[in-house]
Amino acid sequence: MEETRVIEVKEEILAENTAAADAFRAKLAAEGCYYVDIMSSPGAGKTTLLLALIERLRKQGQIGIIEADLESFVDSKKIKEAGIPAVQLETNNICHVEMGMVESAWRAFGGQRFDYLFLENIGNLVCPADFDTGAHRRVMLLSVPEGYDKVYKYPPMFAIVDALIVTKIDYLPLNPDFDMAALHEQARVLNPGLKIFEVCARTGEGVDELAAWLQEGRDQMLAYD
Amino acid sequence: MEETRVIEVKEEILAENTAAADAFRAKLAAEGCYYVDIMSSPGAGKTTLLLALIERLRKQGQIGIIEADLESFVDSKKIKEAGIPAVQLETNNICHVEMGMVESAWRAFGGQRFDYLFLENIGNLVCPADFDTGAHRRVMLLSVPEGYDKVYKYPPMFAIVDALIVTKIDYLPLNPDFDMAALHEQARVLNPGLKIFEVCARTGEGVDELAAWLQEGRDQMLAYD
Repeated sequence: MEETRVIEVKEEILAENTAAADAFRAKLAAEGCYYVDIMSSPGAGKTTLLLALIERLRKQGQIGIIEADLESFVDSKKIKEAGIPAVQLETNNICHVEMGMVESAWRAFGGQRFDYLFLENIGNLVCPADFDTGAHRRVMLLSVPEGYDKVYKYPPMFAIVDALIVTKIDYLPLNPDFDMAALHEQARVLNPGLKIFEVCARTGEGVDELAAWLQEGRDQMLAYD
Repeated sequence: MEETRVIEVKEEILAENTAAADAFRAKLAAEGCYYVDIMSSPGAGKTTLLLALIERLRKQGQIGIIEADLESFVDSKKIKEAGIPAVQLETNNICHVEMGMVESAWRAFGGQRFDYLFLENIGNLVCPADFDTGAHRRVMLLSVPEGYDKVYKYPPMFAIVDALIVTKIDYLPLNPDFDMAALHEQARVLNPGLKIFEVCARTGEGVDELAAWLQEGRDQMLAYD
């Protein structure tokens, strides 16, 4: 009984969230702002990868970052130190980001114009998969130390993203069991159109390719518009 | 409005869940079965640590394992290969384990008697913190590659556990930024009674101490009963 009630309420909330997400997506596209939602487990390297991407993309245009956390300012501080506008979004212990939060964060930028907007989502491989955050592209990170066998454990996330970014590939020599070929295969069975990148943000390996994919995505959005 | 409705339903469900958890906890204590809930991010090493603990504890008594995942049998297969009874609990993409699921898994053991029961919870550092699973002790893993700065990002989890188990300490030389002293301090500000272990399941470092703590916990439970 209770379960049915919760599911009904959840579906209603999800439908409203998706409508708001579609409107936000269209608004940002019209402004030329390409918006990417970055998801992963805790500690997969979202902030470090963002800092590496900022170095590549800041020559191409203005960047803004929304940093989501249950409660804390650790990550937005790092981004601001890189000279990039960042808004900290505290979810008050909610396990995902939804559109009301994104819209508040967006307003907090006070009308600044961006070519690229990134949302660093909550470190959670489960719940954020359910909530459209209005982004043009959704990507997930999987770090090598987490292990390659995550597709079958967290299928919704692997199914809904546009790109899988395998991070911390400098750890591969320490993880001889990490079966990269199996990861590619399992992920593409679930999500045939998935782009897969292998990167190390510390050494910069693979980051140029990822930055190029983001630039292409923005160019396509502008051409389509 | 909707948010209020969801919170009301959630509070009611949590209250029922806690009542069921208390009853389950008492029942297992009366049977001499010491039950531990293991939580962490995906890929922090829960299954590998369990396999190392099994090696130590199987001489002390019978062990049973409940393996929770969104949908998959990867982990329970590994446990069964070690010759330990394991029940796979698929949450059907729900982000946490609650008592109805625990009770179903328990029934699936078909009346087997255990001295130790472990629940390998969903890989999620957020939602499982809210749901009492009826365990005598709740522990969390944090792996070195995830980084030490997680207390302020996931405070509810750090606040409710009895022990923090820092795993993959063989990665410390590769992570000179991992500030173990700061982690201990930040975690204990939030949770003064927290036990902290530093382990490497691959080399066995620290696993004996953790196994000894679990044995002590069981002995205390039996003495109290």
